[in-house]
Parts: sequence; C-alpha cells; structure tokens
Amino acid sequence: MRAVTITEPGGPEVLTWAEVPDPVCRPGEVVVDVVATAVNRADLLQRQGNYSPPPGATQVPGLECSGIVSEVGEGVTGWTVGDEVCALLAGGGYAERVAVPAPQLLPRPSGVELATAAALPEVTCTVWSNVFMLAGLGRGDTFLVHGGSSGIGTMAIQLAARAGARVLTTAGTAAKLDVCRELGADVGINYRDEDFVERVKEATDGRGVDVVLDNMGAAYLARNVEALAVGGRLVVIGMQGGRKAELDLGKLLAKRASVHATALRSRPVEGPGGKAGIVAAVRHDVWPDVERGTIRPIVDRRLPMSRAAEAHQVVEASEHVGKVLLVAGG
Amino acid sequence: MRAVTITEPGGPEVLTWAEVPDPVCRPGEVVVDVVATAVNRADLLQRQGNYSPPPGATQVPGLECSGIVSEVGEGVTGWTVGDEVCALLAGGGYAERVAVPAPQLLPRPSGVELATAAALPEVTCTVWSNVFMLAGLGRGDTFLVHGGSSGIGTMAIQLAARAGARVLTTAGTAAKLDVCRELGADVGINYRDEDFVERVKEATDGRGVDVVLDNMGAAYLARNVEALAVGGRLVVIGMQGGRKAELDLGKLLAKRASVHATALRSRPVEGPGGKAGIVAAVRHDVWPDVERGTIRPIVDRRLPMSRAAEAHQVVEASEHVGKVLLVAGG
Repeated sequence: MRAVTITEPGGPEVLTWAEVPDPVCRPGEVVVDVVATAVNRADLLQRQGNYSPPPGATQVPGLECSGIVSEVGEGVTGWTVGDEVCALLAGGGYAERVAVPAPQLLPRPSGVELATAAALPEVTCTVWSNVFMLAGLGRGDTFLVHGGSSGIGTMAIQLAARAGARVLTTAGTAAKLDVCRELGADVGINYRDEDFVERVKEATDGRGVDVVLDNMGAAYLARNVEALAVGGRLVVIGMQGGRKAELDLGKLLAKRASVHATALRSRPVEGPGGKAGIVAAVRHDVWPDVERGTIRPIVDRRLPMSRAAEAHQVVEASEHVGKVLLVAGG
Repeated sequence: MRAVTITEPGGPEVLTWAEVPDPVCRPGEVVVDVVATAVNRADLLQRQGNYSPPPGATQVPGLECSGIVSEVGEGVTGWTVGDEVCALLAGGGYAERVAVPAPQLLPRPSGVELATAAALPEVTCTVWSNVFMLAGLGRGDTFLVHGGSSGIGTMAIQLAARAGARVLTTAGTAAKLDVCRELGADVGINYRDEDFVERVKEATDGRGVDVVLDNMGAAYLARNVEALAVGGRLVVIGMQGGRKAELDLGKLLAKRASVHATALRSRPVEGPGGKAGIVAAVRHDVWPDVERGTIRPIVDRRLPMSRAAEAHQVVEASEHVGKVLLVAGG
C-alpha cells in the first residue's frame, strides 16, 4: 500500500507519499481501508522529530481516520467487513490501510459523510475525556477554551454549550471569532490585541472560569491560573507555547484549583484511563447528537494524502478553521 | 474572657494571654467553652503576619478546639448546652470561649479524652478532604506523605493504611520514622540523607506513587512530579518550601498527572467544597474508627494556653511528633 512517510525529521517537505508494507491484522484488531485522515498538531511535532510514536505503533503519522473495515482479527466481535467506521489511532492514519484495536472504532454517524467522519475521533475523544470526564464541566459552569477555531476548539465550544456551560474562547482573528460565536461561544477574545485574563474577569464579574482547556502550555500557565475561579481546573493538552513555566502554588491554593496535563495517544487501549473507555463514552454521550446534526464536525478543507505537506503548512500557519482532512488515493 | 492575642506580627514572644471581649453567638452558631486547642503551622504564619484570617473571622488564632457547648444560637438543631464536642474553626481557638458555625462541630468520640479531641478536627478534615474526597486514594494505590510525623502526617498514614494503600513517608529523624512505621507506613524515607524520588522509584519498581500529600510547596514541586505515577495526583496543602517554582508541563502531560493546591480555612461553611460537607464526611467515614481506637489522635505534648509562645517554638523547630495541644486556663 501507499502511505505518507517521514523520510527524515524536518519541514513539511519531508512528507513523502511512498510504497510501504501493508499493516498486519493482529488479534483484537481490524484493518480499515482508509477513506480519509485528519491533520493534528501532534503530526507536525512527529514530523519534526519531536514526538515519537508510542512503543509498538507504526512510524506512519495519523491519529484518526475514517474508512471501511476490510479485515476483522481474531476475537473481534461487533464489527464486520464492509462496515463504515471512523477510528482513534496510535498512528498510521496517513495511509491506504491501517490496523486498529477494535475498541478504538466508532461507527460512521448517520448523516455524516464517510470522509468527513475522519474529523471526529480526536476532537470528540479529547474534549470529552478532558472537559467532561476529567474536569467535570457542567450546567451553569463557565468554560474558557483557547484556540476556539481549531479542530479541538470548534468541538469544545459545541459540547460545552450543549452542556449548558457559558463559553469563552480565544482566537487570532475577528473572522475566526465569528465562527466560534456561531458554534455557541458566548464571549470571543482576540488574543492578538486583548488580555484574556482581563476579559475573563470582566465577563465573570471577577469570578473567573471553572474550567480552562489549554493548548499553549508554558506561555499561558500563569495567566490561565489567574483566570481560574475558586475550585477551577486548568487542563493542558498542548504545549505550543513551551513546556516549562513558573507555577504560583500560593495562587493555586488560594483558589483550591488544579492543573492537569493529559494526552490521548500514549494511553493504553484498555484499563483505567484507557482509550476504550473514552471511545465508549463518546459513542454513548456524543454520537447521538452528531447523528442529529446538533454537534457538527467542522472541516476547513480536504487535500489528497499525496499533498500532506501542503496540509501541514496550512495547519502550521493556523490558516484553517476546524479540521484539515487528507483523503486517500494519490 | 481571656485569649491569646497577637500584639504585633513577629516571633513567638508576640503571643500574649490577655483579656478580650466574649464571642457573640450568631444564628446558626454555638459557643464552645474551650478545653483545648491545637497548634497548626498556619497559626505560625498568622503570628508572623503572613496569613490573614478570612473576612469575618476573629483575629485570635486557633483553627480547632475541643470543649463544652455553653450556648446554642438561633436555628441550631442537634446540639445542646453541655455537649462535649470538638470543632473546626476559622480562628479563635486560642481562647476560653469560641463561637463556631454548628456544621463545623463534631461530637467528642467516645474513648477519646475531651482535651485530646482538640487534636482531631484539622488533621481528619484535611486528610479526608484532600487524600480521599479530592485525590481518591484507594485500595492498592501507593501514597507518599511528606512530614509523616507531623499532625497531618500521623493521621494521613493511619487513614491511608486503613484504606489499603501502600504508604511511603518522609521525616527528618530515625525516631520519627519509627513512629511513622508504627502508625502503618510501609516505607520510611529520611529526607536529610536520602533522595525521596530515588527511594520512591525503588519501592515502586519505577512506577511512582498515585497520590502525594505535600506540605513543602515550591521546594518539592519538581521532585514530587518526578515521583508521580501515570495518572498521579499531587496535592499541595502547605508551602513551607516557598510558593513559586518551575513546573514541567511536559512531564505532567506524559504522566497524565495533576497538581492540586487547597486550604481548609478559607472554605465557605456551606456549598460545594464547603466545610460542612467535609465535617459530615469525616463524622461518617472517620469517626467510627476513632471511637473503635483503630485511628488515633497523636499528641506530642500539652501546654497551657498562656504558654502558647513555647508551643510555637516547639512546632517551629519541628521537635514534635503529632499535635501540640494548648489547654485552657492560664
């Protein structure tokens, strides 16, 4: 089969559409003939040589896909050849075929085109596991998500609004903030010319927010803690602004607040905190509203996998809103 | 009545046993004739001028007491003049009488002498709310508590061992570590000449601990994160080693771990995270084993309130094991 390979760590140009061995379908796995995959920031880090796949995972990038089940491994029940699915992957989505542990599969939601379904697994699993399962956002709570127009951001806004939370978000342009508002954000903050802590305080009568979902890491740590309400939870899922920063424990203690940092890729399939439990929760708690069309995958554009380099340039420059898809076939 | 007053911020010598106005019994409160109070590190900070009482609280120090109910305020049910009680206080324990919101009262546990009961409220409420209600320590988990011979430490060891957790603890002398082992600690680490991270790794086959209860703050932040297992929770309840330190979010993320910081004193009486809920949980979940004698208050020594300065010196020098009590009556 063909796949996008990383010839050496580097810029987008190192991504090469090349012939590689087919994946092997081990017990408990299925093979999916990939229709589409989606670009995640972790793919950019992996391409640069800054994010190694977890042990045992393929070197081919790609943390999610949609497609058709073409092989069902020993011991797998509930899935049949021909099923239209999407899947959370430890890697290997940028390819014509990928092997995936069966508990990481989700059915294509009715009403969502198969290629578009590739935009769903990472964002729904990341938002659901962090904002709801971990941080327990609920009705009447106040929520701040950074990068509201990103793939994660567009899903976080929708799910938080659905939960009855008040949603504040940051983005870098007025046009992106408009999209965020259409998706359900109550307050849009342009991080290029506004101080988000000040805007948060203003919008919450000085109280702060109950949950922050952050992709900036070090660069925002102090300000995110500042923006938290009493009992607030800061959840860091990306470190685009670096990994090390000073934490003022006194401020955290005065608020009885917490700082969490998590990742999806390195989780085990089964067991506490495993991917299987998250995928099952998403299927139960999120999928029905995706099928109703009230929660929507937001797709910026589609490019063929052979133009993965171009897709990475778009994401690197933050030109996109929602997800950038890569569709299979040259 | 007489109370210990802080004439000006400073050393132990500023503590003065003096005449002050009696407390007023407001609706929802009871007045307790104090038999004993206990010294907490927060009292030392307050004496130094570094920890202001929460708004509305008395300036008299003392975060817990035991004694006899002498007045019952409007709307209070379940308590009667003459009841032997102990109580969690927002302040005012270093006095002959103190007013306290009724939900912060606990009955003297049968089998525990009334003065000794003053050693229980802060340590049971702090350990229960943080280690169990917040961090969810459970059977088979591994737990590290710093300062195992402190009041908090001696209760944390007992309650964690009772829960079926494996207990690791640090202390500064071999004699203190012996006490910790008698109370149920599986591993004692002398922080003066051992590297606690190394000892934790060694004792857990490199896995780390599930929960850390920390009183050192900044000085231990990086090492505590290092000592955490995947999914681990660091709970900071004291900042004896400073409040600001560098946090490596990348390390936290790789472990899907979290840093919490909390305090008891500033919590509201009622509402989410309030003292009433914590006290009710302690009465339900901890008190029965205190009455059975399987969970014990550990008292280092008793001094009269008029010698509060001496008690502060003992705690400041960490000469004690367990709690230092101050008994009423000059």
